[in-house]
Amino acid sequence: MALVVQKYGGTSVADPERIQAVARKVVERRRKGDSLVVVLSARAGETDRLLALGHDVSPEPNPRELDVLLATGEQVTIALFSMAVHDMGEEAVSMTGYQAGIITDRAYGQARINWIETLPIVGKLHEGKIVVVAGFQGYDDEGNITTLGRGGSDTTAVALAAALGADVCEIYTDVEGVYTADPNVCSKARKLDRISYEEMLEMASMGAKVLHLRSVEFGMKYHVPILVLSSFTDAPGTLVTKEDEEMEKVVVSGITYNKNEGRVTITNVPDIPGMAAKVFRPISDSGINVDLIVQGSSGTPGRANISFTVPKTDFARTMRIVERIAPEIDAGPVHGNADIAKISIIGLGMRSHSGVATKMFETLARENINLKMISTSEIKISCIIDEKYTELAVRVLHDAFELDRAPLGRIQIQEES
Amino acid sequence: MALVVQKYGGTSVADPERIQAVARKVVERRRKGDSLVVVLSARAGETDRLLALGHDVSPEPNPRELDVLLATGEQVTIALFSMAVHDMGEEAVSMTGYQAGIITDRAYGQARINWIETLPIVGKLHEGKIVVVAGFQGYDDEGNITTLGRGGSDTTAVALAAALGADVCEIYTDVEGVYTADPNVCSKARKLDRISYEEMLEMASMGAKVLHLRSVEFGMKYHVPILVLSSFTDAPGTLVTKEDEEMEKVVVSGITYNKNEGRVTITNVPDIPGMAAKVFRPISDSGINVDLIVQGSSGTPGRANISFTVPKTDFARTMRIVERIAPEIDAGPVHGNADIAKISIIGLGMRSHSGVATKMFETLARENINLKMISTSEIKISCIIDEKYTELAVRVLHDAFELDRAPLGRIQIQEES
Repeated sequence: MALVVQKYGGTSVADPERIQAVARKVVERRRKGDSLVVVLSARAGETDRLLALGHDVSPEPNPRELDVLLATGEQVTIALFSMAVHDMGEEAVSMTGYQAGIITDRAYGQARINWIETLPIVGKLHEGKIVVVAGFQGYDDEGNITTLGRGGSDTTAVALAAALGADVCEIYTDVEGVYTADPNVCSKARKLDRISYEEMLEMASMGAKVLHLRSVEFGMKYHVPILVLSSFTDAPGTLVTKEDEEMEKVVVSGITYNKNEGRVTITNVPDIPGMAAKVFRPISDSGINVDLIVQGSSGTPGRANISFTVPKTDFARTMRIVERIAPEIDAGPVHGNADIAKISIIGLGMRSHSGVATKMFETLARENINLKMISTSEIKISCIIDEKYTELAVRVLHDAFELDRAPLGRIQIQEES
Repeated sequence: MALVVQKYGGTSVADPERIQAVARKVVERRRKGDSLVVVLSARAGETDRLLALGHDVSPEPNPRELDVLLATGEQVTIALFSMAVHDMGEEAVSMTGYQAGIITDRAYGQARINWIETLPIVGKLHEGKIVVVAGFQGYDDEGNITTLGRGGSDTTAVALAAALGADVCEIYTDVEGVYTADPNVCSKARKLDRISYEEMLEMASMGAKVLHLRSVEFGMKYHVPILVLSSFTDAPGTLVTKEDEEMEKVVVSGITYNKNEGRVTITNVPDIPGMAAKVFRPISDSGINVDLIVQGSSGTPGRANISFTVPKTDFARTMRIVERIAPEIDAGPVHGNADIAKISIIGLGMRSHSGVATKMFETLARENINLKMISTSEIKISCIIDEKYTELAVRVLHDAFELDRAPLGRIQIQEES
């Protein structure tokens, strides 16, 4: 008898048939003896429909009222799902963010969970009921409805699992788990049995859309084991958990790519204190998120080149800002390139293994793929390359690091558990 | 500076354009200095859409969850409306039934308001905000979402007006007020300036669909003046208020008809105690609402005929029940007729004026309209006639009681106020 928090995304509850299918899975699980809290997203497309409705009425919807509007999407799903469970002979009780005691700050549209009053849910679990919670929403200390932003239902589920001391948080999605690389790009991509929170964070922020970033942070902070698995098959999934010795033996766990950025370079920036601040202040003031930043020598003494990447949607705006700044700070010409991709390799074992970066560079060089920027962290190496080489780069790196072969250590852990 | 509760129905907020039009009216009113609480229904068709969605998932939706589902309809409207008000430069704050402190019993789908915690609304009014409340919904003492049943938004508005001590509750609808008769049937029908709660109750229960029955009861109990008016024109509307001397001078205020009933007659029922109970117990146990009941002599000593009316949708079922009972209680044959209509005249003045019933009977007799049943109350006389004479009956009674002429007393009151 375990306490399990499950989360099902929008595609898993898109229509009556799927809602009934998921309800059947949940009811079977309940009958095996587990206590269940089920977190649901809005039906696929519903949040976009509500957003469009809001924009039909108001060009710039009031943020508080937009959250009131969007929160109805999950409320519809939890009601429909609970009906389906009742029809199958089990007791379910739906709870909105308010009813489930999910208290957030007041950052409408991107609120953060401050704490959870667990008594309402615990009470219903003790009555043997399946508790069905609206994901993505909460309320602030004055009772205003808030939403957590896109992907917020993952965060709701992991936060509930932490607050309730659940044995595991199961995130059901439309893929079977976390892969060594995008299976659409790399046919040899292999599903991972386990991955550490740290690696998953780098994966998530690098463009693997399996799990929402903040939910992984929550899981890491409160030690919640997160199991990512498919709502359409019975495959075992990937467990996101804290690192152990076996994991550190693996040098590279996965490869990710991101085609959604553009690169900007300012040449010949005077190499004196305060220059970087002068460049990036107007960019961040415009609400543009800068990702990689690399500063290097320009060849001219006392001058440096600064390169950085921004989301492609902000690329043109960023170029205009930087072209205005460059003469003001006595820098040289500005170059921009939106046809780039970021390739990253991620692995806990990099900390203790040398030569990983060299192997990555050599592998790409062998295919004549030029590196435009390099950026490294403790467990990640990212390279900016021409966009057209993205798929090739993923495949050759996957082969070079032998990611198609399951590491022996992991398999043993799997068998032991 | 008055405190005004306004209610707008589903057709008044059916699409973005209408929402903006109503918002404009509300903003103009606010700028004249009134404090405003605006109660909104779900957009026209939305509740039916949600009901269909529920029935797609479950043949017999769990009542608690159905209310969770239906409550989203009004939540969408209050969010959209508040956005529109913000765009016009005034502050609005939406409140669900929960946030507005509307506490009901737990009769899902037909909950009754027990009390209202007015502090949340009063606080926002003091801040100068327009408070926008979701009609039709509340919550019980355990925090479960409840709905008040069809037409419940009228009740929300009048109950809020009572709890807040509002100066008036304005019900905006798609007609300009309460008429002496259905204008579609009687071209001479005249809009009433004022009508008493008692008369309005008889009108509402007789089939005038302007105002929900329970909202009138609430208004009468707590002395809330209710103004019924059009959301599409600036016509002055009809004030529903407590009776005064002027009102009592008017013998007949209005004529209503109802074609949605069928009549059942059991002949030769033994005239001994307990017979009526034996007839009506199985009918009420089947959830069928009996309207008029008339018991009269059968011509045979010690025997009586019992006639009554039920909704047409329950007519066939009622006939089966009664045909089963009749032999059991040693009664004679059972007759039924679904092609009937009920014509009623209503007026406070009937109490003090004699001969009103006679005038009604004579007027109908003059047109060869046969009376199949007669039922009277203090301020109402109802006759059951052949359905095909309905429109004719309404018109000749309207003429006979001179309802097209505004009573002098009322016009004077109107000018004085």
